Amino acid sequence: MLQATFYHAGCPVCVSAEKTIVEALDANRYKVDIVHLGEQSNRIDEARNKGVKSVPALLINDHVMHINHGADLSDLG
Amino acid sequence: MLQATFYHAGCPVCVSAEKTIVEALDANRYKVDIVHLGEQSNRIDEARNKGVKSVPALLINDHVMHINHGADLSDLG
Repeated sequence: MLQATFYHAGCPVCVSAEKTIVEALDANRYKVDIVHLGEQSNRIDEARNKGVKSVPALLINDHVMHINHGADLSDLG
Repeated sequence: MLQATFYHAGCPVCVSAEKTIVEALDANRYKVDIVHLGEQSNRIDEARNKGVKSVPALLINDHVMHINHGADLSDLG
């Protein structure tokens, strides 16, 4: 399985993006890890190191896609 | 089939997003229409009416997701 990670912070923009994009991914090929950075602040550094600058963000094959804009990562910790 | 539309303008950010996100969608459920607004300027108004403000953008179920940022729609026409 390929790995995709969806980083969010529970904001309305995040929830909307999660429902739309995560649901549309091919579940037969992608295992999607959904990370709430507000609750899992220990993963903020991981997200930052992957190039995430704002949430919601979707990471696929080490490619960061910032989807719309909910919150800057710097506002989370 | 559900419909997804990927609007782009041929910019490097667009091509990168297209390869990653369009390829990851579930092709068994989504028919993806890929629209190059630089070449199909007659569809700029359609994109604008759907809420697209910049490209690349992915439209799924009338939900607009601006992915990273390549160019403002207003710069295209």
